[in-house]
Amino acid sequence: MARKGSDTSTIVGLVIGVGGLIAGFLLDRGSLLALIGIPALIIIVAGTIGALTISYSLKDVLGIPRLVRQSMRRVPGPSPQLAQQLLEFAEKARRDGILSLEDTVDELEDETLRKGLRLVVDGTESEILMEVLESDLSILEQRKLEEAAIFETAGGFSPTMGIIGTVMGLVLVLGRLGADPKEIGHSIATAFIATLYGIGFANLFWLPISNKLRGQVKMLRLEKELIIVGVRSIQQGESPALVREKVEGFLQEREKRELDQHRTE
Amino acid sequence: MARKGSDTSTIVGLVIGVGGLIAGFLLDRGSLLALIGIPALIIIVAGTIGALTISYSLKDVLGIPRLVRQSMRRVPGPSPQLAQQLLEFAEKARRDGILSLEDTVDELEDETLRKGLRLVVDGTESEILMEVLESDLSILEQRKLEEAAIFETAGGFSPTMGIIGTVMGLVLVLGRLGADPKEIGHSIATAFIATLYGIGFANLFWLPISNKLRGQVKMLRLEKELIIVGVRSIQQGESPALVREKVEGFLQEREKRELDQHRTE
Amino acid sequence: MARKGSDTSTIVGLVIGVGGLIAGFLLDRGSLLALIGIPALIIIVAGTIGALTISYSLKDVLGIPRLVRQSMRRVPGPSPQLAQQLLEFAEKARRDGILSLEDTVDELEDETLRKGLRLVVDGTESEILMEVLESDLSILEQRKLEEAAIFETAGGFSPTMGIIGTVMGLVLVLGRLGADPKEIGHSIATAFIATLYGIGFANLFWLPISNKLRGQVKMLRLEKELIIVGVRSIQQGESPALVREKVEGFLQEREKRELDQHRTE
Amino acid sequence: MARKGSDTSTIVGLVIGVGGLIAGFLLDRGSLLALIGIPALIIIVAGTIGALTISYSLKDVLGIPRLVRQSMRRVPGPSPQLAQQLLEFAEKARRDGILSLEDTVDELEDETLRKGLRLVVDGTESEILMEVLESDLSILEQRKLEEAAIFETAGGFSPTMGIIGTVMGLVLVLGRLGADPKEIGHSIATAFIATLYGIGFANLFWLPISNKLRGQVKMLRLEKELIIVGVRSIQQGESPALVREKVEGFLQEREKRELDQHRTE
Amino acid sequence: MARKGSDTSTIVGLVIGVGGLIAGFLLDRGSLLALIGIPALIIIVAGTIGALTISYSLKDVLGIPRLVRQSMRRVPGPSPQLAQQLLEFAEKARRDGILSLEDTVDELEDETLRKGLRLVVDGTESEILMEVLESDLSILEQRKLEEAAIFETAGGFSPTMGIIGTVMGLVLVLGRLGADPKEIGHSIATAFIATLYGIGFANLFWLPISNKLRGQVKMLRLEKELIIVGVRSIQQGESPALVREKVEGFLQEREKRELDQHRTE
Repeated sequence: MARKGSDTSTIVGLVIGVGGLIAGFLLDRGSLLALIGIPALIIIVAGTIGALTISYSLKDVLGIPRLVRQSMRRVPGPSPQLAQQLLEFAEKARRDGILSLEDTVDELEDETLRKGLRLVVDGTESEILMEVLESDLSILEQRKLEEAAIFETAGGFSPTMGIIGTVMGLVLVLGRLGADPKEIGHSIATAFIATLYGIGFANLFWLPISNKLRGQVKMLRLEKELIIVGVRSIQQGESPALVREKVEGFLQEREKRELDQHRTE
Repeated sequence: MARKGSDTSTIVGLVIGVGGLIAGFLLDRGSLLALIGIPALIIIVAGTIGALTISYSLKDVLGIPRLVRQSMRRVPGPSPQLAQQLLEFAEKARRDGILSLEDTVDELEDETLRKGLRLVVDGTESEILMEVLESDLSILEQRKLEEAAIFETAGGFSPTMGIIGTVMGLVLVLGRLGADPKEIGHSIATAFIATLYGIGFANLFWLPISNKLRGQVKMLRLEKELIIVGVRSIQQGESPALVREKVEGFLQEREKRELDQHRTE
Repeated sequence: MARKGSDTSTIVGLVIGVGGLIAGFLLDRGSLLALIGIPALIIIVAGTIGALTISYSLKDVLGIPRLVRQSMRRVPGPSPQLAQQLLEFAEKARRDGILSLEDTVDELEDETLRKGLRLVVDGTESEILMEVLESDLSILEQRKLEEAAIFETAGGFSPTMGIIGTVMGLVLVLGRLGADPKEIGHSIATAFIATLYGIGFANLFWLPISNKLRGQVKMLRLEKELIIVGVRSIQQGESPALVREKVEGFLQEREKRELDQHRTE
Repeated sequence: MARKGSDTSTIVGLVIGVGGLIAGFLLDRGSLLALIGIPALIIIVAGTIGALTISYSLKDVLGIPRLVRQSMRRVPGPSPQLAQQLLEFAEKARRDGILSLEDTVDELEDETLRKGLRLVVDGTESEILMEVLESDLSILEQRKLEEAAIFETAGGFSPTMGIIGTVMGLVLVLGRLGADPKEIGHSIATAFIATLYGIGFANLFWLPISNKLRGQVKMLRLEKELIIVGVRSIQQGESPALVREKVEGFLQEREKRELDQHRTE
Repeated sequence: MARKGSDTSTIVGLVIGVGGLIAGFLLDRGSLLALIGIPALIIIVAGTIGALTISYSLKDVLGIPRLVRQSMRRVPGPSPQLAQQLLEFAEKARRDGILSLEDTVDELEDETLRKGLRLVVDGTESEILMEVLESDLSILEQRKLEEAAIFETAGGFSPTMGIIGTVMGLVLVLGRLGADPKEIGHSIATAFIATLYGIGFANLFWLPISNKLRGQVKMLRLEKELIIVGVRSIQQGESPALVREKVEGFLQEREKRELDQHRTE
């Protein structure tokens, strides 16, 4: 059901954010080379990945690239198309009986809708039907939220790894005190690179992607709730007018009008 | 229903807050020029917007100006006028039957009230009526809270972008150690401007507006809850005295007296 | 019902807290003059008030002095006197019928008790009665908690305004580097005063008063819940022994004994 | 019911924690005298107590020593002895009728059990019985949690008082800049003592004791819930096998076996 | 039921994390010796353990090694094998009657399944059955979460002990100001080691293991919920198709196919 497509906001956001930081730095007559620190990079990345691996499991950590790609997909939430389809099913079921949906069921793409209608066609009791669908949704949501939580946890570890890197760098510097102040200045600068990377990764990678995944879960839940409301209406044989009132609440103003156009057609 | 008007508190607050900071600085014999930093501004704004774009979507970020304007509108919450209107509907429905409301329904401005009364006139079962109205309200509230959350998220990113800017500035300074102390002092000052902007934007723009939007959602929910309570009372044909007791709980002391005046008139 | 009186703990606490800070400072051979900073004061107070005004509204901010005074009133929570009164009403209603309470109702000071008993005397259905009283209480509680939240929000803004003030002060100092170190030291000290004020106001004014108001809301809720339990018992005509068991749970050990004395009298 | 005794873990923990800090300091060739700072102590203690007095009340603050002693008592939670006693009451009630418990009731030490059984013997309706016991438990729990919250609040104020003390100390130092560096070093060290005390008191006194009290409340709740489950089983006249299954869930593995031994005896 | 095995991710994560930190440090031409600080180690470990002992009890603290080992075990959550077994029980009970399960019950490894089926065989009422199983699960979950909370609490104490250690180190240094700058640099470096250890232990030991234990509790809850759903289906004598729909929701895509293979066999 979900109109899955590409969501370029991750790329756009990275360009704006990282680009802005670099632009500000260059405008301040800084050399980009001064911001490169391989030791700091190793400390931040390995430290964060290590802490994540202990927190979850190697499998979860290896799944991070998949989740990053997932964060770039569009999850549109409850769409007028879905609402329209539920309305049509409700009308058909009311007109021709619930069994008339039997042939359509297996072709449905959305798993919740397919399972829901199959249970309706099989004559499952209303209360049990709701219980099964809501239990499934809540388990699905929990799994998705835990995936988002991996990124949030990483966003918490990353700045502290930055502090660790900086403190280690300062320990190095302080052990060499008395040397040429210019060199010391350079070493302290290098130590601060770790803080920069730690905070930067957290705030332009881990936390924003965690937010994005969480937002996708909310959209997914809303979409599934619309389906559950629709399936129950179909089972109860409610009047098309009432079903319309029910599903409309899931749509935004503009989308409601889109749905209403179908009505007059 | 809502007496929508302008709410000047955002402007007033900005004047007091920013004005106070500047006044304190000038009183300390500081030059305003010393507080201007274009690179810092770019880092803070682009960094925050970038992180927001990854977290939500370009569309959400482009909607920020609309939300800022929205935060300057008055959202008065449950008003005595609304309570009075619900009382009159309840009396009319009790006297002349629910169908007597049919003509009034379509002229109503508030969508919840219109939908609720339409469902009542259509003879919807009480339980389903409540379910539809509360589901609609909870979806509306969720959407509004997510809009406020954008500002709260920005209020979290902004100071960390300030730290990033300052650390980048310090890296610059430290690479030039050994130079004229006066120039170094100036460079460190510039680096701190980023912290200033990061914390300033967060605490005088993002977070206060997030608070304001959240407060508006609470007022909106209370207003909608009053409508839902009223619609149910109308459907149940409850006595005017009881309806009055119910709606009065939503009003503040002063407003209750306003409502009571209508009683004696 | 509430034995309202003065609660001196705000004054006592301020004396202990501020006094202790000053005593420690003087013991360290500091001059009180060194702690006075008008620019810092302006920055902290105007910054915090400005951020609050954007967050809420000018009306809410102007209500802060009223809330400070409110925090100095005693809110005793459920009292044995109230419990005793509910017991007597329950006995009277059981003995002489619910209508025997009609004359007493309008003289009652507590609004919840008055409204509850009036609804009981009017013969309101038990379920609706509970719904009305609990809805009223939850709206009242929400309003009171939002008042306490103003102080908590201020307690969050105040230290960040302190940081802003200090950073602005440091920017000033750094622009003058190379000057007499003694003067520089003095300027840095002045910059730190802002941090001092920011944290001081938060921790000895905003946050403690927010805590106090929150505690008062809890007491108020408990008192109102006792009334609601009592009103329902009166409506149900429950035995005095059972009503006693119910209301006793709201009292503390010592207060229970106070209530039991009335029993034997 | 609770096997109340002494819990030495507070003392042991203080010895380990404070001892470890001092041992590490001495090992670093530090002089204990360097860690003593009377002004800092006054600032931290008076500041924290002052903020607490405003937040709560003088009475609550004066009750802190009592709560510290309370934190050193053992609160064992649901015990096999209690489970066994409930089983015996259930068997007796089933065999000889509920009234057979009448004589035992008044001798019971635990207030919840006494009140519950008295209500059962008095023939209170099952639903009301549960309501009364659960309302009492929730009020008791709320009061206890607020006591623990005093310590948590103190644990939040203490480090900020430490920062205030340190900033005040630095203000002193900076006013004397240009003096003998050795003396300045000493003064800065003294300023840091306040941070040390602030964090130390929070992390080795306030917060751990808050945790302990909270843990005790959880144990208390579990014990009371076991009693409530038991009392209901007694009232319902459930079979001893079923009551055993119910109460066993409250015990830990080892304790279940202890209970099972009583079975075979 | 749980396929218990070893989970190497704790070891792998520690190697990646600690290894990465050390690699970055060495790459920066640091000597590992510079990172060793016995006094700091004593302060962090004893301080954290001390604070934990006051917070919980000596017994809980001594149980930490057992919990670390527990965090290295695999807790697979709801497995297709378990789902399959529940399906078979459901079919058998429907075909041969519930009593046909009597012999199998006592051989079951999982305690919840054993207790649930025993209660079913004993003819326990459905509502009471659910109540007992869910109460047991919620108590079990609470105990497990409190174990995870010990590690989270430690993760909060550890960095503050690091700050205490560093401040104590700085106090030492400042008392010796005026000495050879090289030696002073070395002493400050030593002071920072405490911060390093405090943050390091928190982020590569306490917090990740707390996360891991929490994740295990979630898996355990899901597994137990699957059992509870299954036991109720068995008691209700639901059709195998419906039971399959119910248990499938607990499995992941890949696992569902595994379960479906059993279907066709």
